[in-house]
Amino acid sequence: MTTVNHQFRLAARPVGLPKRSDWNYTEEPVRAPNDGEVQVKIAYLSLDPAMRGWMNDVKSYVPPVGLGEVMRAGGVGEVVESRHPGFNKGDHVYGTVGIQEYATVDGKSLTKVDARLAPLPVYLGTLGMPGMTAYFGLLDVGKPQAGQTVVVSGAAGAVGMVVGQIAKIKGCRAVGLAGGREKCDYLVRELGFDAAIDYKSEDVKKSLRQHCPKGVDVYFDNVGGEILDTVLTQIARNARIVICGAISQYNSTSGVRGPANYLSLLVNRASMTGMLVFDYANRYPEAMREMAGWLAAGKLKTREDVVAGLQTFPETLLKLFSGENTGKLVLKV
Amino acid sequence: MTTVNHQFRLAARPVGLPKRSDWNYTEEPVRAPNDGEVQVKIAYLSLDPAMRGWMNDVKSYVPPVGLGEVMRAGGVGEVVESRHPGFNKGDHVYGTVGIQEYATVDGKSLTKVDARLAPLPVYLGTLGMPGMTAYFGLLDVGKPQAGQTVVVSGAAGAVGMVVGQIAKIKGCRAVGLAGGREKCDYLVRELGFDAAIDYKSEDVKKSLRQHCPKGVDVYFDNVGGEILDTVLTQIARNARIVICGAISQYNSTSGVRGPANYLSLLVNRASMTGMLVFDYANRYPEAMREMAGWLAAGKLKTREDVVAGLQTFPETLLKLFSGENTGKLVLKV
Repeated sequence: MTTVNHQFRLAARPVGLPKRSDWNYTEEPVRAPNDGEVQVKIAYLSLDPAMRGWMNDVKSYVPPVGLGEVMRAGGVGEVVESRHPGFNKGDHVYGTVGIQEYATVDGKSLTKVDARLAPLPVYLGTLGMPGMTAYFGLLDVGKPQAGQTVVVSGAAGAVGMVVGQIAKIKGCRAVGLAGGREKCDYLVRELGFDAAIDYKSEDVKKSLRQHCPKGVDVYFDNVGGEILDTVLTQIARNARIVICGAISQYNSTSGVRGPANYLSLLVNRASMTGMLVFDYANRYPEAMREMAGWLAAGKLKTREDVVAGLQTFPETLLKLFSGENTGKLVLKV
Repeated sequence: MTTVNHQFRLAARPVGLPKRSDWNYTEEPVRAPNDGEVQVKIAYLSLDPAMRGWMNDVKSYVPPVGLGEVMRAGGVGEVVESRHPGFNKGDHVYGTVGIQEYATVDGKSLTKVDARLAPLPVYLGTLGMPGMTAYFGLLDVGKPQAGQTVVVSGAAGAVGMVVGQIAKIKGCRAVGLAGGREKCDYLVRELGFDAAIDYKSEDVKKSLRQHCPKGVDVYFDNVGGEILDTVLTQIARNARIVICGAISQYNSTSGVRGPANYLSLLVNRASMTGMLVFDYANRYPEAMREMAGWLAAGKLKTREDVVAGLQTFPETLLKLFSGENTGKLVLKV
């Protein structure tokens, strides 16, 4: 009996927001594993802003997804068949599995996850790449000190919500930027942010002045564009800006908007530093341990926005760019 | 007998390039020093790109020059009369004396300079603020390592020429960006740069690719604008960009151009850091000693572009923005 695998394969390089016709929905038999390989039945797929960049035919930190290739994505699932000594049938694993139902991949590319410690979707969020990004981006690049003010944009997203909570754990003042009153209330009431600014309805500069009277010491930027420019006007002496992403710019058809206020870096002897989580791979276990401890102690809360149905992938991905999701956006296969 | 002092006082906030009518040329008796003050006969005045910024009514790292105030400028001269115990008649001093013939200032604001060690104009260039800016900006912020590639813009200017030469002293590859073949030849033939790119006639991206085949490890930016954006496309992994100035933007009437390619910081895990030389004031003596040693050993060459006549100030200042000067632009009073 042959199992059928459904997949989304890149069909076109999108212009602006991606649309369903930029992928082909394909069907083929699941490939049996060769020596060293593992076959995984995918349970949850991670939907990330970075996926938009991978669709462009541009040299970056990873090669673009080729036309005809399965759309790249991280995911968690269960081992169906293993020809790798490190994995057994029934193990739960994380890996770059792609937007599909089954993946047959090199065992070396997989990491075991413990479904008893946290539900599987958490390994795509707080205990996954977004959590690692928040942890290393904030602590290693942002270097916040107790008493300092940390501002994070995309604060209700998978990375941002962890950044603000770690800032609080480290004794900082945490101010989040998010779209909509509901998200802002969630950040303050549920996650313990000191303040949240609704960039859709508030004058961001005025609100930053109000909530960061001594200026912004660390700005963790997930969005770029106008918000980055506005925060640049409010940074404190020796501020550190962490460039993690620029979701406002990924679908731009008129080019990226550069931060016109970048000379504030000079006036304030401040820095702007790009980071990629993969550089910290050998320290993931350390971060995982600490984050799992915070989760267990209730100091760190996690939230996933789970949408069911592989078929919904193209439309579900767009929730990231319209800002509809709160917490980690996950596709349930 | 009263000595007459001539001065340039700010008359208007310039729009775009400053013009003669943005200052008033005034005349008044020299003021006698009070207790603790020193009267200086100014010999040479420093003309710097930053002066343009001081003319704007904008909060920055120093207050703007007020309307009616003597235009701020550094200068060197000779003590005429001293009521400060640290200075005697005939001493040579450096200070923020303003665009005028005489200054009566607090002795605490002056620094003695040794006219036997180097000609006075050198204390406005290589042994002055531009030299200190190059030294600390490159070594402390840029952190170049032997064998790495250092690119500097405004390379034939007072800061840039020192940056490239220190890069060479530290065992780096030095590539300069300057306007015009003559300046470029000077950088390579006289100052020992490995290569110079004439941004006015060359395809900068192509030339950077050619002269920096492993990418740019340190970029010392004096100009901003299009050149900053182009260099961003050629940076190496973990590159450091030092934001020292943005002379291409200071006279813009349509706002500052932000670096649209700033996401290259993310892709390359690179940083962009602003610096101001004043933060290193307590380390100037250390830098002066080392720089004077390099000068004496012939490892570091200095060059000033001296224009005579206080009266020529408004037009002479413009040489900076048209890129006419090679080396430190100095006004001989």
